[in-house]
Amino acid sequence: MIVVMRRGATPQEVRQVEERLRELGFATHPIVGVERTVIGAVGNRRDDLMEQVANLPGVERVVPVLRPYKLVAREVKEETTTIRVGDVVIGGPEVVVIAGPCAVESEVQLLTTAKAVKEAGAHLLRGGAFKPRTSPYSFQGLGLEGLKLLAQAREVTGLPVVTEVLDTRDVELVARYADVLQVGARNMQNFRLLQEVGQSGKPVLLKRGLAATVEEWLLAAEYIAATGNQQIILCERGIRTYETSLRNTLDISAVPLVKELSHLPIIVDPSHATGNQRMVLPLARAAVAAGADGLMIEVHPDPARALSDGPQSLTPAQFSRLMEELRRVALAVGRHSLPQVSLSCQAR
Amino acid sequence: MIVVMRRGATPQEVRQVEERLRELGFATHPIVGVERTVIGAVGNRRDDLMEQVANLPGVERVVPVLRPYKLVAREVKEETTTIRVGDVVIGGPEVVVIAGPCAVESEVQLLTTAKAVKEAGAHLLRGGAFKPRTSPYSFQGLGLEGLKLLAQAREVTGLPVVTEVLDTRDVELVARYADVLQVGARNMQNFRLLQEVGQSGKPVLLKRGLAATVEEWLLAAEYIAATGNQQIILCERGIRTYETSLRNTLDISAVPLVKELSHLPIIVDPSHATGNQRMVLPLARAAVAAGADGLMIEVHPDPARALSDGPQSLTPAQFSRLMEELRRVALAVGRHSLPQVSLSCQAR
Amino acid sequence: MIVVMRRGATPQEVRQVEERLRELGFATHPIVGVERTVIGAVGNRRDDLMEQVANLPGVERVVPVLRPYKLVAREVKEETTTIRVGDVVIGGPEVVVIAGPCAVESEVQLLTTAKAVKEAGAHLLRGGAFKPRTSPYSFQGLGLEGLKLLAQAREVTGLPVVTEVLDTRDVELVARYADVLQVGARNMQNFRLLQEVGQSGKPVLLKRGLAATVEEWLLAAEYIAATGNQQIILCERGIRTYETSLRNTLDISAVPLVKELSHLPIIVDPSHATGNQRMVLPLARAAVAAGADGLMIEVHPDPARALSDGPQSLTPAQFSRLMEELRRVALAVGRHSLPQVSLSCQAR
Amino acid sequence: MIVVMRRGATPQEVRQVEERLRELGFATHPIVGVERTVIGAVGNRRDDLMEQVANLPGVERVVPVLRPYKLVAREVKEETTTIRVGDVVIGGPEVVVIAGPCAVESEVQLLTTAKAVKEAGAHLLRGGAFKPRTSPYSFQGLGLEGLKLLAQAREVTGLPVVTEVLDTRDVELVARYADVLQVGARNMQNFRLLQEVGQSGKPVLLKRGLAATVEEWLLAAEYIAATGNQQIILCERGIRTYETSLRNTLDISAVPLVKELSHLPIIVDPSHATGNQRMVLPLARAAVAAGADGLMIEVHPDPARALSDGPQSLTPAQFSRLMEELRRVALAVGRHSLPQVSLSCQAR
Repeated sequence: MIVVMRRGATPQEVRQVEERLRELGFATHPIVGVERTVIGAVGNRRDDLMEQVANLPGVERVVPVLRPYKLVAREVKEETTTIRVGDVVIGGPEVVVIAGPCAVESEVQLLTTAKAVKEAGAHLLRGGAFKPRTSPYSFQGLGLEGLKLLAQAREVTGLPVVTEVLDTRDVELVARYADVLQVGARNMQNFRLLQEVGQSGKPVLLKRGLAATVEEWLLAAEYIAATGNQQIILCERGIRTYETSLRNTLDISAVPLVKELSHLPIIVDPSHATGNQRMVLPLARAAVAAGADGLMIEVHPDPARALSDGPQSLTPAQFSRLMEELRRVALAVGRHSLPQVSLSCQAR
Repeated sequence: MIVVMRRGATPQEVRQVEERLRELGFATHPIVGVERTVIGAVGNRRDDLMEQVANLPGVERVVPVLRPYKLVAREVKEETTTIRVGDVVIGGPEVVVIAGPCAVESEVQLLTTAKAVKEAGAHLLRGGAFKPRTSPYSFQGLGLEGLKLLAQAREVTGLPVVTEVLDTRDVELVARYADVLQVGARNMQNFRLLQEVGQSGKPVLLKRGLAATVEEWLLAAEYIAATGNQQIILCERGIRTYETSLRNTLDISAVPLVKELSHLPIIVDPSHATGNQRMVLPLARAAVAAGADGLMIEVHPDPARALSDGPQSLTPAQFSRLMEELRRVALAVGRHSLPQVSLSCQAR
Repeated sequence: MIVVMRRGATPQEVRQVEERLRELGFATHPIVGVERTVIGAVGNRRDDLMEQVANLPGVERVVPVLRPYKLVAREVKEETTTIRVGDVVIGGPEVVVIAGPCAVESEVQLLTTAKAVKEAGAHLLRGGAFKPRTSPYSFQGLGLEGLKLLAQAREVTGLPVVTEVLDTRDVELVARYADVLQVGARNMQNFRLLQEVGQSGKPVLLKRGLAATVEEWLLAAEYIAATGNQQIILCERGIRTYETSLRNTLDISAVPLVKELSHLPIIVDPSHATGNQRMVLPLARAAVAAGADGLMIEVHPDPARALSDGPQSLTPAQFSRLMEELRRVALAVGRHSLPQVSLSCQAR
Repeated sequence: MIVVMRRGATPQEVRQVEERLRELGFATHPIVGVERTVIGAVGNRRDDLMEQVANLPGVERVVPVLRPYKLVAREVKEETTTIRVGDVVIGGPEVVVIAGPCAVESEVQLLTTAKAVKEAGAHLLRGGAFKPRTSPYSFQGLGLEGLKLLAQAREVTGLPVVTEVLDTRDVELVARYADVLQVGARNMQNFRLLQEVGQSGKPVLLKRGLAATVEEWLLAAEYIAATGNQQIILCERGIRTYETSLRNTLDISAVPLVKELSHLPIIVDPSHATGNQRMVLPLARAAVAAGADGLMIEVHPDPARALSDGPQSLTPAQFSRLMEELRRVALAVGRHSLPQVSLSCQAR
């Protein structure tokens, strides 16, 4: 770390900081500047130690040099991690699409959607059985019954299932039914839940918190990785900013940035990012063009009667148009998506 | 709710929306404007129904009229809720001060701090046994041992104890040792945890989420209230904005705003709001002047060796100066704080 | 507008609001709800009148129904506005690329860059003669000399020139040398400047303010349009959010959103949006995939010696690779870019 | 500055960076760490040079050590700058109150307000003659006529006048009528305007930009100071955040923070910060308690008919109650406000 001393810090204060740093196991390199002295401290990063040093007399601030996360950093693992779910590989050349309803509402609703998205070329099925709702008076999900319907939909379509878990007490149950455990934006810093899903041994889809920095997001992934489970799929789903014309602001830059900082695959959820189905297609194309490894798209057979997130859901017909367009963009950026692609290529 | 139709929506689209609204149990009042038609829909607010209607053909947007929360709204309960913890009343004329270390580190550290803050006039003792830390490599708290030390500190000082609970599985345990259960900013929308702490029957201190709107915060409180437990203390602790000179941005306006919207008491945590001990005193004074019912202040006997949040912790000496200043401001705004006050008044 | 009365507003308060609304020329439609009364007021939107009504006794809030901008709204003009600059058409099927250095530094620097970007297929040349710098101690631009060098570069390359104007007093001068006048993010609400550039009769490139909503941005465009000049190119260049890993946050959603709300063309500046040259290529591709009508890209022959914005500038070699990639994405989304495109198509 | 090299940067890259730094006039101190090498560079801060170095091969990032502003920094001038306007001293022990209407609307409106605020104890009169309005269709101010009315109000009441200037071309005119020139939030980075108002020799009230960091704000003040005019009053007026329950978010922490970083006086404008007159009183009290040197308050004789900002304007009666409360808070924090204070003290 770099310790920046206050202008006018006394030599004694500088000495005390150096002593404390050495006591904490750092090698120190003071640099006396025109206005300020800075002390380079060589050793492992420990955020709590930085806080302590920041508090010593005469210290203005402490600047970290090393990254706070290790296991998930690209620096320690060059090649992108690939995650296999059934026959699907996330993080490989293919752009993977996870589609389905926001919430599982009924057998008919789920199966209709599942068949339609399978038909259109989706790779995985999404659907919420436990729903985190801002209002206690909104539909909270079907719970266990929802999980059973998801398993049934997998039976019928062969699509692996992604579903959210809200509570450490439910991890074991959800893991029994789901192929990928989703940790939602609101729980990105629910550290106990991160540890539990990590220990489940299942692949984890980790959504970015509503106001999480990329660094905090990667540290949340580090909590999972620290359990020995590195099957982590990061999902950018829009952040909260001052702009309220749409539900959230899709942080598209997070895609290339995360690819630079981490070896984990990253996908994008344009449905939650905008809350507006008319924005889903252009932003899905943008995500692929930016280098995303996949997409998560909400689809509902009758959005106007959806119990949750209707305004951002595509109809099956809109979804299959979207898949067609995505194939073209994927090819343009050197990715591909589904067998159909090669066909549609020859068709050209 | 008010349904705003798109410019150029067809009479048939308007009719369909009206029909759907009536089907959903609303009385409808269409208003044909110069450019747009709007439909007033009279009935109870249901956010999921608003989403459905927003998705009908020809609809531009839906504007809610009623507030989404009910039990915690000032509209339904004029007088401010007061919460009794031991002999302390939160939400009354007195400005209540909760003080202590960020994390419980040792018997000596906790007891020294507890005695010092008691001495200076604090009303409750704070201290974290389970710590939510951004990095998995930071100190995570002493857990059960920390809870026992808190109980011991209560024995010694008579101060009721406030401590955070992170996991639904720990609620019962923590409730056995603590007088007030704290739900931290990162868990404000951990809805299962809200329900569990609500059912514990203990008073709950609910911190505002890092990027939570006041409305979302009150809806989180509504989750607790819906369990039948209205002993909820709201705590403003700074929000995340683009400004990074300090850790967070203290949203001081939330104090008078919450007082207008809700009957629940609200306190302010200037320590977490700034992450800088030099800012704690002026902002604590500001919070009292703005009408806060109390304060939460971090105090540590040796901040430069604190295992957590040293930079924002006051020394016992700084804390007792702060208490003196708060008394003067409290009196100036018609509140008071502790017996000592009357004395210091006569002293004048 | 819709006037929402407070819960418990008296019939007399409702009557007074209705009277005032009629006095202001609105037709009123009161709707008595379960908890609240709302009053629909039919007439033209006037934000100052909304403020007045919001202030009447018993009023909780006023909700606008109509959009505050008119001339730039898609509602009043279906087809996208196309702007011709020399032989270039902005807003048409072609994706237009504006490239050049952040600041004009010297004849050699500018001409080298201009020739290189022309070579690579850029349509317009950018370069700052008057630079708005956060610090008074940073390079402020060459001023008039810079304008002359831009004109010279146009001579040599045939590329029309885009440059920024900072001061109402400079508009006439800059208009004498430039083909397109740029209003920078910091001046988006410098309303006098907007009026002056509008009156210049030149096409205007209007950058989005650092924290401007899309609505405020379109209202700034409305200021220009109100002078009778509708040759306005909107430019998304990143907004300020809590996320600081990159300089700004590119609001990619603004592209499809603006296309829905306005008939004006919109381009994207990934260089300023990220401040990091490694992010420029993926985000430029994303912008085209999202439907942008063009791009603004910073190019410098020797970024490590640039007097401004070096970290985000591409070298000529990087820029020509970018152009190649953009062509593929443009084709994939049904746009095209430059003659070379057709060739590269046949090449396939 | 501190140059942090990428992990795995080659010795040659490190050497090249050192050479470049020395070429730029810095003394270099390389520190070889476990994972990374950092280079301490001693010399004057130049942001453009930092950008150049950040762009050299092998460099991860550059961390500034020195503050970018000099003239306005507390570091270079211990004592707070006091600014005399007529008999009023801003930055001294007294809490100074600037009050008046948002916009000058008419002789009656302005004089009524001016007399009322004088009566209640205000020190200066505010009123806008040139109004920056988001919409081109809103009232834009009376211009010259407004300036004349302000001068007339000063005649009648003896209150010095503060008014905003929007355009470099108007500075001379406005300076002829006003005692203090206001630069509004939207023009905080209108650098030409900053230079012009600086050269006018008049005291300048510099509002913080809507999304300006404290550092950018002080750099804007530095632009003024660099003209030789250090009579600068900083005004915190709320920043833009994700929270929209009120118009802006008052950044109360900016008060103690600015006092630490700069010797310039700082005042607070709770009217614009909230856009809601019910919030003005508690936040005005908070500002004084936080250590503000003054307040700027909007007052209108008939807010419900104000042509601008009615919802946040106090009536004269509300304003004089506010003054009474402020006096008590000012005394509690060791400040005072107006002769009346001493009286009201004896009254106790």
